[in-house]
Amino acid sequence: MHAYRSHTCADLTAANVGETVRLSGWVHRVRDHGGVLFIDLRDHFGVTQVLCDGDSAAFAELEKVRSEWCIRIDGTVKARDPELINPKLATGEIEVYVREFEVLGKAEELPLMVFGDQEYPEETRLRYRYLDLRREAMQRNMTLRSDVVASMRRRMWDSGFREYQTPIITASSPEGARDFLVPSRLHPGKFYALPQAPQQFKQLIMVSGFDRYFQIAPCFRDEDPRADRSPTDFYQLDLEMSFVTQQDVFDTIQPVLTGIFEEFGNGRKVDKVWPQISYKDAALWYGTDKPDMRNPIKMQDCSEHFRGSGFAIFAKLLEQEGTQIRAIPAPGGGSRKFCDRMNAFAQKEGLPGMGYIFWREGEDGMEAAGPLAKNIGPERTEAIRLQLGLGKGDAAFFLGGKPKTFEKVAGKARDVIGEELELTDKSRFAFAWVVDFPIYEKDEETGKIDFEHNPFSMPQGGMKALEGDPLEVLGYQYDLACNGYEILSGAIRNHKPEIMFKAFEIAGYGEAEVRRRFGGMVNAFHYGAPPHGGCAAGIDRIVMLLADTVNIREVIMFPMNQRAEDLMMQAPSDPTSDQLMELGLRVIPQE
Amino acid sequence: MHAYRSHTCADLTAANVGETVRLSGWVHRVRDHGGVLFIDLRDHFGVTQVLCDGDSAAFAELEKVRSEWCIRIDGTVKARDPELINPKLATGEIEVYVREFEVLGKAEELPLMVFGDQEYPEETRLRYRYLDLRREAMQRNMTLRSDVVASMRRRMWDSGFREYQTPIITASSPEGARDFLVPSRLHPGKFYALPQAPQQFKQLIMVSGFDRYFQIAPCFRDEDPRADRSPTDFYQLDLEMSFVTQQDVFDTIQPVLTGIFEEFGNGRKVDKVWPQISYKDAALWYGTDKPDMRNPIKMQDCSEHFRGSGFAIFAKLLEQEGTQIRAIPAPGGGSRKFCDRMNAFAQKEGLPGMGYIFWREGEDGMEAAGPLAKNIGPERTEAIRLQLGLGKGDAAFFLGGKPKTFEKVAGKARDVIGEELELTDKSRFAFAWVVDFPIYEKDEETGKIDFEHNPFSMPQGGMKALEGDPLEVLGYQYDLACNGYEILSGAIRNHKPEIMFKAFEIAGYGEAEVRRRFGGMVNAFHYGAPPHGGCAAGIDRIVMLLADTVNIREVIMFPMNQRAEDLMMQAPSDPTSDQLMELGLRVIPQE
Repeated sequence: MHAYRSHTCADLTAANVGETVRLSGWVHRVRDHGGVLFIDLRDHFGVTQVLCDGDSAAFAELEKVRSEWCIRIDGTVKARDPELINPKLATGEIEVYVREFEVLGKAEELPLMVFGDQEYPEETRLRYRYLDLRREAMQRNMTLRSDVVASMRRRMWDSGFREYQTPIITASSPEGARDFLVPSRLHPGKFYALPQAPQQFKQLIMVSGFDRYFQIAPCFRDEDPRADRSPTDFYQLDLEMSFVTQQDVFDTIQPVLTGIFEEFGNGRKVDKVWPQISYKDAALWYGTDKPDMRNPIKMQDCSEHFRGSGFAIFAKLLEQEGTQIRAIPAPGGGSRKFCDRMNAFAQKEGLPGMGYIFWREGEDGMEAAGPLAKNIGPERTEAIRLQLGLGKGDAAFFLGGKPKTFEKVAGKARDVIGEELELTDKSRFAFAWVVDFPIYEKDEETGKIDFEHNPFSMPQGGMKALEGDPLEVLGYQYDLACNGYEILSGAIRNHKPEIMFKAFEIAGYGEAEVRRRFGGMVNAFHYGAPPHGGCAAGIDRIVMLLADTVNIREVIMFPMNQRAEDLMMQAPSDPTSDQLMELGLRVIPQE
Repeated sequence: MHAYRSHTCADLTAANVGETVRLSGWVHRVRDHGGVLFIDLRDHFGVTQVLCDGDSAAFAELEKVRSEWCIRIDGTVKARDPELINPKLATGEIEVYVREFEVLGKAEELPLMVFGDQEYPEETRLRYRYLDLRREAMQRNMTLRSDVVASMRRRMWDSGFREYQTPIITASSPEGARDFLVPSRLHPGKFYALPQAPQQFKQLIMVSGFDRYFQIAPCFRDEDPRADRSPTDFYQLDLEMSFVTQQDVFDTIQPVLTGIFEEFGNGRKVDKVWPQISYKDAALWYGTDKPDMRNPIKMQDCSEHFRGSGFAIFAKLLEQEGTQIRAIPAPGGGSRKFCDRMNAFAQKEGLPGMGYIFWREGEDGMEAAGPLAKNIGPERTEAIRLQLGLGKGDAAFFLGGKPKTFEKVAGKARDVIGEELELTDKSRFAFAWVVDFPIYEKDEETGKIDFEHNPFSMPQGGMKALEGDPLEVLGYQYDLACNGYEILSGAIRNHKPEIMFKAFEIAGYGEAEVRRRFGGMVNAFHYGAPPHGGCAAGIDRIVMLLADTVNIREVIMFPMNQRAEDLMMQAPSDPTSDQLMELGLRVIPQE
């Protein structure tokens, strides 16, 4: 017989009754029923009930085992009495009578119980991660992550892509965030950087003629920690294609992601239609560039109804340039209580409040209620109702001013309204492409033009577009939103050096600086660069959505804590003086 | 029609004749046959011949294109005349008559030609890697690497393993080499390290109950560069299993690697029998712990034949303790010329020379020749011949002394003899497990006992073995040799804290130091650690064997040069003073 097991703890069924078997695993739970010892023996695959009584030579020693000891038992498979069969357990038809056993690994007193649902502080969980990971939910999350990544790979291969690995110890690749640096020993005083993304390399792979690249790519950004962000490394499904348009990229990645969400969505519906929404419309309709499309609410511009109306605040506001009154329709929100609560929400978010109208059963049928309705009068109120397509029992909220000042809160209000009125279908994954991002933005204070997003995107209209008003230039650049999260970002790249230099010039970067910062890639564009584009999808985020968690540390095997420390491995730590000397570095004493 | 292509450059056949098509690719070669322009248009998939004459509106502009310009053409598929059909080309039946074309990316004068076989200095190739990679051999190597890795993954999944990612920015994991360090910004003066291997993490994954882990794992060692070693990062197929013996690991990985070598070996034979050879026997038989099993030569101890013989040098030598005379049989090497050449080889390698005997046709049948035979006389000579199983036309070489002093040269001589006599079958992949490594070695000078290999291996015989002579203790530790290269290394781990502390104590490390250096893992072993073991196979090395190259830079997309620099991306480079300040570091000026 094998040294450790003839079966896993998920294998045995009634078909094995009478067999002599060997099992290894952890003591999940032990119960002493007056001279009969019941142990739930657990391994990665499942749980088997083993038992032992005074007739067994093993009894005296087995009595000493405690939770989470790792043991090996030999025994005989017995059928359970019919009334004791556990249909929830794969091995619920049987139990194993222990004849011999061996302690493989003792456990000291546990700082964290594996059995049961007790909650522990995150610091405890991370310090004893190897115990935390034994818990059922964590086993499930980690295998889910592994399966998702494997399925992504398979789907990418099936779509004609090959995975190519790009360097991890490399040059700085300015992506907007901070680089992690790696001091060079062979070149003291010089530093490598860890890639924020394989952006330049994947573009170089296209220039090298490989046509279709993907990689499950580790990315490194030295960012301040957040609950939904790893402070060190995170993973992207990174892809790039030559000779493609934006629509080709969409047509490539949509079936891959649809397949992933269907395969691992646990029965939740996966939308097949992914609307393409311009950045501008997304802001207007949803108040965000990552709209939650499960929520049917679409905001609308209602400015005309308030211009010169009796509601002086909005009427006055509209006299200023660039202002707008925007409505959030709230079907089913037609009660004063709900409207007041939403108004309070807006105030909590730092706005003066949200005006509202709601429609209720009145004396002569439907009537519009709320202070706003009174101020603007029945005609305008009715026009608004008709524009928004609302009726009795519904409400509408109004925000006014320059859109930038209220859009974010409007988007949040839309989320809360959708949630509270149960309009947002939680059992669904809904996607939207957000397209036509502006290439540039203007700093309101300095008036300086800078890149709004990624400087490597091809401007729509090419060189010609760059000769007009920069703020009007849109890029072949796109995000994908799923359930209110950005899960993917990409672009058709600017592969023509002359257009690239012009694009940077507009943002105030001279040719020399561009060559200095992105020399590797820019030089390559002088040697026959193909048109190309691609995207990168956030793997941690996708697994979080599938696992239905908002904490990234639930889907990473050994995450850092929020101070970017590994409490289990004791990282970061002090270097030795030899190490510093070899690297030609000195630590500046901190105050 | 699609913006860039209706077909790839490998798609068109006689079936497409008459169709209007669109192709994009690079100008591989252009020939002007007096008013008719022939262009080999190349993409990742293949080459299509396109042509153009003065009747085409595109002619005047197309005449201007040069090698490696990226272009798009529209044209009509024509059948080639039967005598012009190129059976070596997938598209050799047709050519495309160009009606319209567009320059997608111009190329400046090329520092490196893609067409043809011209050799370039490695520095040029690395600086213009995107051109170098367009060459056929590099396209083949990179797709081979990608396909090998994908196949490994598939085979590991099919064997019941899941891939789990371990941290890249983490704590120092002392594996014998130097760590790359990453300064922490949030904790100035402290450093992370990049993992030399995921050793501790994969063991922690076993303690966490995941049973079977693998990873195509990036590993980082700050080692001085060598032709067959990347100076920064390299990749391992890393795996670990719980509840296994050494043989289980062998039985798991052998089919995976056999499959890989069969799938990508280009018809070379893959041995199915992988002998298990002890470290001690490998040294005796092959003079190395990574024997080339394609070479049938097996060395033997011939000491007895020389003890007290007329060959005074060997006879004297054998009077010293720990000495031995070892024979390298050389079937077919029975000529003085060959024997003298081998003797010269040994001298070049720093030994006084190799004695030899060879057997030739003499006056009375076979006779033994060479000075050695004369000195020891016919009886001993014949006994040697019989022991080695040699005959007429064969030779044997002899080396003497303490084995450590000559074993390495003996191994090299065996390689050279096998090669020169064409005994080594080059069309074959031959494997051997080298097992039973000693846990400890003694420093000849200081007499100090230290770990011979990996300190985390389980000693054979467990605690009991550690109570005897340390130099006699063997480990459950193994290497796999393929064609003379170590391609895999592994062990059954020491998962019992008390045995681990004892093992370290013997090598002079106290419990406190072990806890300080390997605390993450050692602490975990106190909470129910399962027996576990695994291995790591070198992916770069395996791909090198399959691609039949000895330069690691031929199988890495963007490698560093031998000074650990990336000439294309300009890494490493000077940090900014802001970066240094944020990290709390100062660069010490170099002399």
